[in-house]
Amino acid sequence: MSVEELRTIRTDLQKRYDALCAAGLKLDLTRGKPGADQLDLSAPMLSLPGDDYISPSGTDCRNYGGVTGLPELRAIFGEMFATGAERTIALGNASLQVMHDIIVFSLLHGNVDSEKPWGAQPIKFLCPVPGYDRHFGITEKYGIEMINIAMNPNGPDVDACAQLLADDPSIKGMWLVPTYSNPTGYTVTDDVARRLLALDAAADFRVFWDNAYAVHTLVDAAPAPLPILDMAEEAGHQNRVYVFGSTSKITFAGAGVAALASSQANLDWFTRNISAATIGPDKINQLRHVQFLRDADGVRAHMARHREIIAPKFQLVLDILEDRMGDAKIASWTSPEGGYFISLDVVDGTAARTIALAKDAGIALTAAGSAFPYKTDPHDRNIRIAPTFPTTDELRTAMDGVATCALLSATEVLLDAQ
Amino acid sequence: MSVEELRTIRTDLQKRYDALCAAGLKLDLTRGKPGADQLDLSAPMLSLPGDDYISPSGTDCRNYGGVTGLPELRAIFGEMFATGAERTIALGNASLQVMHDIIVFSLLHGNVDSEKPWGAQPIKFLCPVPGYDRHFGITEKYGIEMINIAMNPNGPDVDACAQLLADDPSIKGMWLVPTYSNPTGYTVTDDVARRLLALDAAADFRVFWDNAYAVHTLVDAAPAPLPILDMAEEAGHQNRVYVFGSTSKITFAGAGVAALASSQANLDWFTRNISAATIGPDKINQLRHVQFLRDADGVRAHMARHREIIAPKFQLVLDILEDRMGDAKIASWTSPEGGYFISLDVVDGTAARTIALAKDAGIALTAAGSAFPYKTDPHDRNIRIAPTFPTTDELRTAMDGVATCALLSATEVLLDAQ
Repeated sequence: MSVEELRTIRTDLQKRYDALCAAGLKLDLTRGKPGADQLDLSAPMLSLPGDDYISPSGTDCRNYGGVTGLPELRAIFGEMFATGAERTIALGNASLQVMHDIIVFSLLHGNVDSEKPWGAQPIKFLCPVPGYDRHFGITEKYGIEMINIAMNPNGPDVDACAQLLADDPSIKGMWLVPTYSNPTGYTVTDDVARRLLALDAAADFRVFWDNAYAVHTLVDAAPAPLPILDMAEEAGHQNRVYVFGSTSKITFAGAGVAALASSQANLDWFTRNISAATIGPDKINQLRHVQFLRDADGVRAHMARHREIIAPKFQLVLDILEDRMGDAKIASWTSPEGGYFISLDVVDGTAARTIALAKDAGIALTAAGSAFPYKTDPHDRNIRIAPTFPTTDELRTAMDGVATCALLSATEVLLDAQ
Repeated sequence: MSVEELRTIRTDLQKRYDALCAAGLKLDLTRGKPGADQLDLSAPMLSLPGDDYISPSGTDCRNYGGVTGLPELRAIFGEMFATGAERTIALGNASLQVMHDIIVFSLLHGNVDSEKPWGAQPIKFLCPVPGYDRHFGITEKYGIEMINIAMNPNGPDVDACAQLLADDPSIKGMWLVPTYSNPTGYTVTDDVARRLLALDAAADFRVFWDNAYAVHTLVDAAPAPLPILDMAEEAGHQNRVYVFGSTSKITFAGAGVAALASSQANLDWFTRNISAATIGPDKINQLRHVQFLRDADGVRAHMARHREIIAPKFQLVLDILEDRMGDAKIASWTSPEGGYFISLDVVDGTAARTIALAKDAGIALTAAGSAFPYKTDPHDRNIRIAPTFPTTDELRTAMDGVATCALLSATEVLLDAQ
């Protein structure tokens, strides 16, 4: 393409962008929040449990007790995550808090395989990127050094992990969203998981297996959850994995229930530690979930209704990206079969500029670099798109605007390079 | 009393105790749990919020957001604790977790007035005794040295606090249940509070003002909550106090909502720290509480109904203690005007024995020493009585049994001393 052609394109894009700014938009593609229509799917829960406050196993859920949660909910989670009810406990409203607390307990005490508290030495975490900003926020907050690892379509780059772990026993943990990963939508394969579990590492190395989107499929052929605790045991590292999950994007965001699954030794350690902080989770909310979801089949049926609402939104984003940027070859994006995000890579060095342009046009995008440790995207190219919360019309307008901003930024860079 | 008389009394008590054991009791006076009839008072909440899931200020409580909680609930708490809505935030289901998290954040980062993290040095807490076992559990868990302070009817022994604080800048905190204290029922007076707030201490010294029983009165003339944050400000130590509270013993135990009130600087510090761990508390449960309790007057009206149920139980315990042990002068006990406990002091050196005898007779009492740091009652004399959970009949049988065990233990000691 000649400079002249580029200039013409840029002029067209600038006009389009000016029109966008003139429209006075106020649209938000930042966070992975369910839309109001998705929340409506769980409306019956808002009147539960009513008079039916005794759990099936006979617990008065209105009173204190039971730090590991209702057995009936543990059974549902145990099936959802292929971890089994005995190795799965049901907790409060935020799986992120469970991850946070496990890191805090490890810093102050060490885990079951630690020789000393994590906090007694400089330690590091492996971070598949792009990844989940709130994961990185916890490790950054506690001064844990984060090392970027490529997140590939089949999972994290295990060869890179192997080398780092072999060289450095101060690597104590790894963040990982194994199913429909945030923001790529990639899912860890059985093979990659097995290799990761088998790696030589510090005895107290832990994979934070945040299966937040285990059942959040957009397709018929959803992957079965890997029996990751069994696989860890087979690999001879039975304490290596903490499995996390919640119903935040199944029932109500922020008013759901969280799960933790791990080896018995890890669960005993966690339960002992958390018992200093709380008498137990909100069992009434747990009961409400048991009554509404019933079992893992009930969860899957419920998720099919979510899919009906959000799959068209994902398709719309993909259609607009293809329509606006498919020919130009200046961007690439993932086509997730589940989860809550689409990961868009624009021309290197233009993500921050694209996001700034969009902001000025009234379209809020997740801050540049958010999907990377220290909020630093080494290529300044990644943009996380969250399609679920806006209405279809808002989403169409916003995505078209994002495409304009990305293309405009790209032409600027290309012209600068001339 | 002659040895002969004592022997006769012991023989009678032994017979009475043998009959108690033969009765095959299974009674529990251990924890401060509300009874089922108390929980019934909040039955309407079990069907809330129904369709009414938008908060009065317009928030869709079903979705993410709002780490400081619903303003409407903050207003209720702000009045209940005389801390004002702005300096009061509404959180999750457990105030104990908030206390725990504040200690963890302080250990790992230090508080707003710390020169270095609490965890970077040996530190100590002042512990009014007898006190709340779960408080002491947190500080013990994190290796914070605990120093016993006498809890008097007007509050902690401030002279002792003054001397310790003047001598030792490593004292960083103090536990305190200011209203109807666990287990004595004592309430901190305005004068004691002011003196405590004015004491010279390390800049980052904090009073953990756990106002768990702020509205849990058993009498008409309930003490108004002290405006403790204003008082701290007047004393020139505006960051000294963290106020905690919850509705666990107002609505549902373990399924209530917690509050934290403090200076703006402290709240900002807490909010910044907790934001790494959670997107926010369960707003649906907060809304449910707002709808049911309405305002601080609604809380007080609700507590009056609790009082109708539990005041007779407290009176029954006091009547039995007076009837069985009033003349013998071998025990003393508190007569609380609120809260959840009666503190019984038996003959020095006989609390553990009394509790063991009761256990063998099928009456569970809180473990000996529980109300003291390191579970060590220096005089082995304190027994915490929790009257609320058993039925009246169970309570009568259990307390009569406890009196028998205490008297039997006392006669043993007196005979041994001959």
